[in-house]
Amino acid sequence: MRKICLTIAYDGTEYSGWQKQNHARTIQGDIEEKLAQLCQEKISLHGAGRTDAGVHADGMTAHFENNSRLSPEDFQRALNSMLPGAIRIIKAQQASPDFHSRFNAKGKVYIYTLYTGSIMPVDKRLYMLHQAKPLNDKQVNQCLQFLVGNHDFSSFENSGSRDKSCTLGRGAVRTLTTAEFAQTDKEIWEFTFVGDGFLKNMVRNIVGSALEVGRGHKTVSWFHQALKAKDRAAAGPTAPAHGLKLSRVLY
Amino acid sequence: MRKICLTIAYDGTEYSGWQKQNHARTIQGDIEEKLAQLCQEKISLHGAGRTDAGVHADGMTAHFENNSRLSPEDFQRALNSMLPGAIRIIKAQQASPDFHSRFNAKGKVYIYTLYTGSIMPVDKRLYMLHQAKPLNDKQVNQCLQFLVGNHDFSSFENSGSRDKSCTLGRGAVRTLTTAEFAQTDKEIWEFTFVGDGFLKNMVRNIVGSALEVGRGHKTVSWFHQALKAKDRAAAGPTAPAHGLKLSRVLY
Repeated sequence: MRKICLTIAYDGTEYSGWQKQNHARTIQGDIEEKLAQLCQEKISLHGAGRTDAGVHADGMTAHFENNSRLSPEDFQRALNSMLPGAIRIIKAQQASPDFHSRFNAKGKVYIYTLYTGSIMPVDKRLYMLHQAKPLNDKQVNQCLQFLVGNHDFSSFENSGSRDKSCTLGRGAVRTLTTAEFAQTDKEIWEFTFVGDGFLKNMVRNIVGSALEVGRGHKTVSWFHQALKAKDRAAAGPTAPAHGLKLSRVLY
Repeated sequence: MRKICLTIAYDGTEYSGWQKQNHARTIQGDIEEKLAQLCQEKISLHGAGRTDAGVHADGMTAHFENNSRLSPEDFQRALNSMLPGAIRIIKAQQASPDFHSRFNAKGKVYIYTLYTGSIMPVDKRLYMLHQAKPLNDKQVNQCLQFLVGNHDFSSFENSGSRDKSCTLGRGAVRTLTTAEFAQTDKEIWEFTFVGDGFLKNMVRNIVGSALEVGRGHKTVSWFHQALKAKDRAAAGPTAPAHGLKLSRVLY
């Protein structure tokens, strides 16, 4: 059995998320289908995590085992010719037998993008949240600073199953090493989060809550209290999926 | 009656082109429908030209007359809130009574975009043609130089109705003031065409033919002969719609 690790970019717009489902189109489902055709056997693709419906990725990683003689480059070329353009294999590498895309992941980088101009460009609308009204970026960053470090993020966790790898003994406690909001281009601002693990909807709930402050609807100290409350009801709404992308998985 | 001129951007991916059709979704059809709701009367929207199914625009212009008291800014705001995100009104201005978006147009700027990296980014795939193999850009530009000036472009015209405004007395003769191919960003190359009018599929046929040369399948002199032949069969294939956008209409 040979193990291969893929780095995958996808446009999640028309997908019901990463994880395979019986009656919905998913990233994992689409790739496993093509892998089965290529290998002439059932192949299980193990992702480093899940992304929700509508969320994108620049660099999801996932591994699979197979008995074929295809090289990593063969898999990359073949998958990219078989898969729809919304999914691209940007790298394929041989992995050591004990590698596991989820258990070995040391962290992830998520980016949430806002477009702040008055009219959303048509070719960016599927990848950025439109925020035309002025935003207090200093206050947004003040909020984000509360998150850096080791915290119980229950207030930003939606109900739903947790990744088993992440919950052993630590509940909703996660460590964020980076949480910042900065302008990256004309009219474009990005939230960047780097952490050892993320709870269900955690990034979108943090962004939705920080935007409440940035828009002047809530105060910085409300945000701080929301974190400390360890109660989802204390925080703000979930930001829309389409502004979010999984940028990288760290090993 | 007041006349208003709109500047419109659109993502043509899911549209059957600009021009209204009975059983298909079109840009003109979508905007006229919203204008009728706003004005409580049937409104005819006159575009500066047409774009084919799948072709995009950064700056189509179109005018309409109406009896409402809405200001241009009111129309812009209302239309942008009613229309899908694939269509944006980027400007709305009061126009003089004798203005006509098509008859007054002095020219148009079209841009055709290629992505030349090995793997097409998922968020660009709907707006650029993927050209992963090396291209001889010098030869492409040599081809394009033959087109600058006043020429009969029959070899690059697909059959179909011509804009009436463009054909009076000049057949397939058009004047191009710019035809060039240049790198505009990392892995991104653009064809730019500026001319007083464009025949059906003219830009896509020119691009498809110039790419035959750039890819080494045909010679520069073949391209020159193709232009001189005034025969569609002498030129190359039609490049895909999704790489093309109407950038600006000149007045």
